[in-house]
Amino acid sequence: MSTPAPAIALAPALLPDTEAISAIVRLALAEDVGRSDLTTEATVPPGARAVAEIRQKQEGVLCGLPVVERVFRAVDPAVQVLALAEEGSWGAGRVVARIVGPACAVLIGERTALNFLGRLSGVATMSRRAAQRVVGTSTRVLDTRKTTPGHRALEKYAVRVGGCSNHRGGLDDGILIKENHIRAAGGITSAVSAALRRTAPMQQVEVEVTTLAELDEAIAAGAHVVLVDNAGLEGLRAAVARAAGRVRLEASGGVTLATLAEVARTGVDYVSLGALTHSAGSLDFSLIVL
Amino acid sequence: MSTPAPAIALAPALLPDTEAISAIVRLALAEDVGRSDLTTEATVPPGARAVAEIRQKQEGVLCGLPVVERVFRAVDPAVQVLALAEEGSWGAGRVVARIVGPACAVLIGERTALNFLGRLSGVATMSRRAAQRVVGTSTRVLDTRKTTPGHRALEKYAVRVGGCSNHRGGLDDGILIKENHIRAAGGITSAVSAALRRTAPMQQVEVEVTTLAELDEAIAAGAHVVLVDNAGLEGLRAAVARAAGRVRLEASGGVTLATLAEVARTGVDYVSLGALTHSAGSLDFSLIVL
Amino acid sequence: MSTPAPAIALAPALLPDTEAISAIVRLALAEDVGRSDLTTEATVPPGARAVAEIRQKQEGVLCGLPVVERVFRAVDPAVQVLALAEEGSWGAGRVVARIVGPACAVLIGERTALNFLGRLSGVATMSRRAAQRVVGTSTRVLDTRKTTPGHRALEKYAVRVGGCSNHRGGLDDGILIKENHIRAAGGITSAVSAALRRTAPMQQVEVEVTTLAELDEAIAAGAHVVLVDNAGLEGLRAAVARAAGRVRLEASGGVTLATLAEVARTGVDYVSLGALTHSAGSLDFSLIVL
Amino acid sequence: MSTPAPAIALAPALLPDTEAISAIVRLALAEDVGRSDLTTEATVPPGARAVAEIRQKQEGVLCGLPVVERVFRAVDPAVQVLALAEEGSWGAGRVVARIVGPACAVLIGERTALNFLGRLSGVATMSRRAAQRVVGTSTRVLDTRKTTPGHRALEKYAVRVGGCSNHRGGLDDGILIKENHIRAAGGITSAVSAALRRTAPMQQVEVEVTTLAELDEAIAAGAHVVLVDNAGLEGLRAAVARAAGRVRLEASGGVTLATLAEVARTGVDYVSLGALTHSAGSLDFSLIVL
Amino acid sequence: MSTPAPAIALAPALLPDTEAISAIVRLALAEDVGRSDLTTEATVPPGARAVAEIRQKQEGVLCGLPVVERVFRAVDPAVQVLALAEEGSWGAGRVVARIVGPACAVLIGERTALNFLGRLSGVATMSRRAAQRVVGTSTRVLDTRKTTPGHRALEKYAVRVGGCSNHRGGLDDGILIKENHIRAAGGITSAVSAALRRTAPMQQVEVEVTTLAELDEAIAAGAHVVLVDNAGLEGLRAAVARAAGRVRLEASGGVTLATLAEVARTGVDYVSLGALTHSAGSLDFSLIVL
Amino acid sequence: MSTPAPAIALAPALLPDTEAISAIVRLALAEDVGRSDLTTEATVPPGARAVAEIRQKQEGVLCGLPVVERVFRAVDPAVQVLALAEEGSWGAGRVVARIVGPACAVLIGERTALNFLGRLSGVATMSRRAAQRVVGTSTRVLDTRKTTPGHRALEKYAVRVGGCSNHRGGLDDGILIKENHIRAAGGITSAVSAALRRTAPMQQVEVEVTTLAELDEAIAAGAHVVLVDNAGLEGLRAAVARAAGRVRLEASGGVTLATLAEVARTGVDYVSLGALTHSAGSLDFSLIVL
Repeated sequence: MSTPAPAIALAPALLPDTEAISAIVRLALAEDVGRSDLTTEATVPPGARAVAEIRQKQEGVLCGLPVVERVFRAVDPAVQVLALAEEGSWGAGRVVARIVGPACAVLIGERTALNFLGRLSGVATMSRRAAQRVVGTSTRVLDTRKTTPGHRALEKYAVRVGGCSNHRGGLDDGILIKENHIRAAGGITSAVSAALRRTAPMQQVEVEVTTLAELDEAIAAGAHVVLVDNAGLEGLRAAVARAAGRVRLEASGGVTLATLAEVARTGVDYVSLGALTHSAGSLDFSLIVL
Repeated sequence: MSTPAPAIALAPALLPDTEAISAIVRLALAEDVGRSDLTTEATVPPGARAVAEIRQKQEGVLCGLPVVERVFRAVDPAVQVLALAEEGSWGAGRVVARIVGPACAVLIGERTALNFLGRLSGVATMSRRAAQRVVGTSTRVLDTRKTTPGHRALEKYAVRVGGCSNHRGGLDDGILIKENHIRAAGGITSAVSAALRRTAPMQQVEVEVTTLAELDEAIAAGAHVVLVDNAGLEGLRAAVARAAGRVRLEASGGVTLATLAEVARTGVDYVSLGALTHSAGSLDFSLIVL
Repeated sequence: MSTPAPAIALAPALLPDTEAISAIVRLALAEDVGRSDLTTEATVPPGARAVAEIRQKQEGVLCGLPVVERVFRAVDPAVQVLALAEEGSWGAGRVVARIVGPACAVLIGERTALNFLGRLSGVATMSRRAAQRVVGTSTRVLDTRKTTPGHRALEKYAVRVGGCSNHRGGLDDGILIKENHIRAAGGITSAVSAALRRTAPMQQVEVEVTTLAELDEAIAAGAHVVLVDNAGLEGLRAAVARAAGRVRLEASGGVTLATLAEVARTGVDYVSLGALTHSAGSLDFSLIVL
Repeated sequence: MSTPAPAIALAPALLPDTEAISAIVRLALAEDVGRSDLTTEATVPPGARAVAEIRQKQEGVLCGLPVVERVFRAVDPAVQVLALAEEGSWGAGRVVARIVGPACAVLIGERTALNFLGRLSGVATMSRRAAQRVVGTSTRVLDTRKTTPGHRALEKYAVRVGGCSNHRGGLDDGILIKENHIRAAGGITSAVSAALRRTAPMQQVEVEVTTLAELDEAIAAGAHVVLVDNAGLEGLRAAVARAAGRVRLEASGGVTLATLAEVARTGVDYVSLGALTHSAGSLDFSLIVL
Repeated sequence: MSTPAPAIALAPALLPDTEAISAIVRLALAEDVGRSDLTTEATVPPGARAVAEIRQKQEGVLCGLPVVERVFRAVDPAVQVLALAEEGSWGAGRVVARIVGPACAVLIGERTALNFLGRLSGVATMSRRAAQRVVGTSTRVLDTRKTTPGHRALEKYAVRVGGCSNHRGGLDDGILIKENHIRAAGGITSAVSAALRRTAPMQQVEVEVTTLAELDEAIAAGAHVVLVDNAGLEGLRAAVARAAGRVRLEASGGVTLATLAEVARTGVDYVSLGALTHSAGSLDFSLIVL
Repeated sequence: MSTPAPAIALAPALLPDTEAISAIVRLALAEDVGRSDLTTEATVPPGARAVAEIRQKQEGVLCGLPVVERVFRAVDPAVQVLALAEEGSWGAGRVVARIVGPACAVLIGERTALNFLGRLSGVATMSRRAAQRVVGTSTRVLDTRKTTPGHRALEKYAVRVGGCSNHRGGLDDGILIKENHIRAAGGITSAVSAALRRTAPMQQVEVEVTTLAELDEAIAAGAHVVLVDNAGLEGLRAAVARAAGRVRLEASGGVTLATLAEVARTGVDYVSLGALTHSAGSLDFSLIVL
């Protein structure tokens, strides 16, 4: 698989500095280190320093350097991480960072840092491929909540680094009424109107439908966005026509990288892809002490 | 992909009840729920109860029901999870559990529970396939430390459910001297002898080598297990011959499901496969409120 | 101050069961109990049980019984809290709950429970008064982020119990571009368009303006909601006329209970009132062991 | 309301550096920031720096700058807080601090910092007014345990900054036998003598009474301090006469700023005022990026 | 060493149910269990139940059953601990508790439970011996802050179970001015008067002295309790004579079980003994599965 | 007791920098400081600095300076700890460290730092004495899991500083099959073979026996190490003869410092001594502000 084209316009992506991210970093180090790194303790002379390089062995988007930095900083604030390639850049067979500091700390953090880096680069790489499929359309590719438990903020960041967009971050920052909610509320109309009462000024209501009749009901009830579930290309085109701009439409379910471009051409506003985070795989990186 | 044969003998696998597992479950729920589930709060009548079913849509090993139970119990201890298929069993298109309890709690826990279940079943499925490749040999297939950060204990459990074995759990429960340690210690001999002084009675020393000369040195230094890195079939056969039972041998690097059987037939004691945990993918499950 | 009229239609308000709320309850108990309740330990016979009543001494909305329950449950799960008045009801001079359980636990939890109850009832009471001022208009009264640190979820719940609506819960569940952001982004237009790229499908962009020219710019830039800051009645009427339904408008700044009705009659969609949470005061409750 | 006179002698007040205070600061930031500050992330250029000023808009005692510093430091240690007015000083319409650092961090911490500052300044201001009422008497004005849950240490600090004194910090650092304890122990005499057995050398026993007969019993039982509850001026004078210096007396219940001076003139040693912390209100401060 | 006489009157001692105690229990289990109990996992059939007995092998005071219960409850709430001997009773060669529950949980909690039980029984036994030395005098034997880090509340409880009294629990629940504070404050007089301003109504001031002149100064300054450090019997008698009941006196430093009775006969009010907690040793207990 | 001879060869011992150690340090400070250090707050002028010395008053091995440093750093990162004697060195009547920093922080951390230092030095001193008893033999002296709850990593470090070796760190880093496990598994043979299936490559299986017949069974089952419980010198010699190098042997139970040399001369590979950690006592240190 060669360097991807066409190029896409990327917005700058920031990794937030929150307790949730510190927590998964701490948890990851704790589970790997346990009581102490026996091997390093036994074999590395106290006080020894190390310079190491992280090398990207597989082709794809580099994503996760800020996490690498937090991992090593959590092991020992004296470790320094110098980026040698740009977060979000495409490449392979290259040195992406230099790690300098106490040798023990470098070896203790190695595996955890690489585990994060490989996975986030995997997500960003798949997101980049998805984003490229819709270049030239006005459709945005979205992630879902099918993320690795405990890695939500990290993977949503990797999706942005890759060039796709984030759907809501969790159950509390957006209302998305699904089949189970509709049944509980006694129908689309009552579900949507209950939801409208609970929204803050800048929040809207999205509702999932499976038929055009449900789409009509959602629009009439005041929904702002409608998720069209598993509709197929024909179904999506019909929904776009029926909605006629009165609501925005999200295609979801059964979309793959291969069908993405065609789905976008139906005119839907959004396509969401669980695979961006649950099936992205991991890119191979290694750390070598010089 | 059909039901796998031949059958393998599975040891019972227990999911430990530790703080590390509670921590990742709490973290996962916290990141998904945030301040509260706005949609459920708005649409589900207070006091409503639900009966739901979890359905396995893709073929493979079911793994993670104990985690599903902990997720829902963490949301609300009043939720009950009834297993309808056996943990570790192979299947597809089947209902694997029934969830009964307050409707809000069922909907709040749904996504987190499914995210754990899909991933662990993915790991167990790949482990089952690996275990089947070595049936009839005395070689054990091992996982590595290339696990999802924060999911170490869960994924090692899934590996056991699948039928493979666990390598060490972390840096503190086994000494494995790698290239970087050897260089820091000034050679295999000095690294191994330093390590031997640090072991508890039931702990042994493993060391990584890349040549037969290094293998000789490792044996002479008193190593108990030798990891032969990226050796190829020829190299492994040579190592087995040279070791002649004086140390146990682990093959690592560049092994895939496709080459696993052949690697096992070289006579190595262990083969370790990072892919069991870093590239296993996710099985598709859904939760439907009845 | 007498029983309020006219009656308003209240939506059911739920107190979410999140870690953030457990955390403030635990923190509150820890700071009060410290090493142990010396007085209770010295004077209450081990094993003694108590029945106690919580009495509402000041007139207003009862709010906080679910928190009272969590406080006592955190002290000792054996304590039972029986509601004798309805959460959200208006009253005075009445017994609102009966507490039954180990005497030590009842006495240990007393002050913390009452401190929560008094403050939340204060917020709900002020919110009720605010909600009544706008009955008959389509304006919604909103809270702000000027809440007691650590009590955000509780106070937003009290606002709902009182009959007003919640603005966003925090910095992550809605985009509200204020003066400082506009300056940093180099103007309303660039701020809004950057924000639009960052929104999830069901999220909109709100922007703060102080002049009609800025209102025009905000609308042109694609903002969905505009916060008109400190505009006075004249200014609000002008903004409503100019917006002409193209965006929703929020009046903020300088509004009091006394001016609320008049502000609502300008036709703005929302009025936000920091005083609901930062100046609501506390209602007096007492706990007496029978 | 003008600048207060007469001046009172203030002891230096320190804000302790404890985990309880870190905890409420972290909790407050976590609830406000959640997953990340969407607006700042979208609109503020990465790397931008800001200089901001905090302005005190309402007249009163400035209190809380050390908390402001901890809030910003918790967001980003690179933020610097420079005090431009003295903690504990009286003023209005003045710049009290300058904040310098990464623009994102300044904006993320703004609301939380102001929420703390406004409330603590409110408590300190009311405490200053109370302290001034008793100038010239030997009576000390005390706070109570009717503090905001989770803010005990902060508000007790604000009380000291204001010029009043602290009653006990919690249930573990002083014995105060109240009505419910007396009933549980079977009377004042047995409660006090049980308590005396439990005290450390530097701890004394306080007991609440409502009649002169109970005061007599408390003195005879060996109590060191007696809280006279809701006695009225006549009752307090009678208690002072009866105690005749054998115990110290605390007046509690029904005292307001308006009656404080008169209560002090009865000769009681202490007056405790719940309103210092539960009804102090909040002073208005704003942060403006220059 | 035989069963101790004479009998002493014991006050009931309660183990508080605080977060600090839960924390040390959790920490202790976490450090022992780590990732999981490998041996139990491998050898105990899933679902097996066990009945076990805890046997006291060495003579002394039984202390710590409530902690044993919390340890097993923390491992698995299904474990039941039945006391067969009374907390605080003297004995040897006896079964003190029966443990019933899941076999895995019983084995996992065993060592941690016994480690707590042995140490607390050691402290209680030494305290019992100390308390017996002062029977018939009015002197109380006190512990100090020389406790095992993280075990303060537990060991202070064991001291009470043994029959001695607790000095202050920590730095926040009593003022004890030592040599270093006196120097920092510029003398006894200024230190005591500063401290008097900081006390709550039921708190007093204790100060450490080494000469009669300092004792005079402490009394004149208004101290309530004076700690006479390392004075010897003569010095203590002189201090008692000079104090003449104006302050209470605490003897500290250089006191042993052997000299305790004589020290008490000097007439000091308190003797404090660091050895109660820092040199008490551990009693031997074992757990046997029946 | 004089300076010990003969000298033993010490391996460098490192104190790991893990969350478990931070946790016990935090817990220890929290329990001592509570709400704040009232005495220091009242008597030490704000801003005062202090230089203090820690003096070792009792003869023995100095152990714990890295913990002293972490204690003071946790109180205030501005405190500096300068070692004046070497960790692991033997001495008495000497200054071992100088503490420089804010006077308040020095006084707040004093007691906690000394409590750790005294106990760890006690453990290291006893370990040194034990190590000296076996000089000239090939036997290693091991600690056990009978450590102070929450102090496992610290005490195991002190054992290494003293010159002995560590047995496993906890239940997860080594398999040691004891009597209760054997009974649960239905015999030594089935227990060992179940355990062998659960080991990682570098892990071995140890099993406890009480007779030569059991020793035979353990060897036949494939155990690698055998713990011979309470066997007496005769029994140990018989076991050594019977094992004939096929397994390593650990003597445990009933060994004291006095009998240690003789036990070692039986030829066992290991002797484990619970007393190293549960009965080591505490060395006396003091901190004096200069």
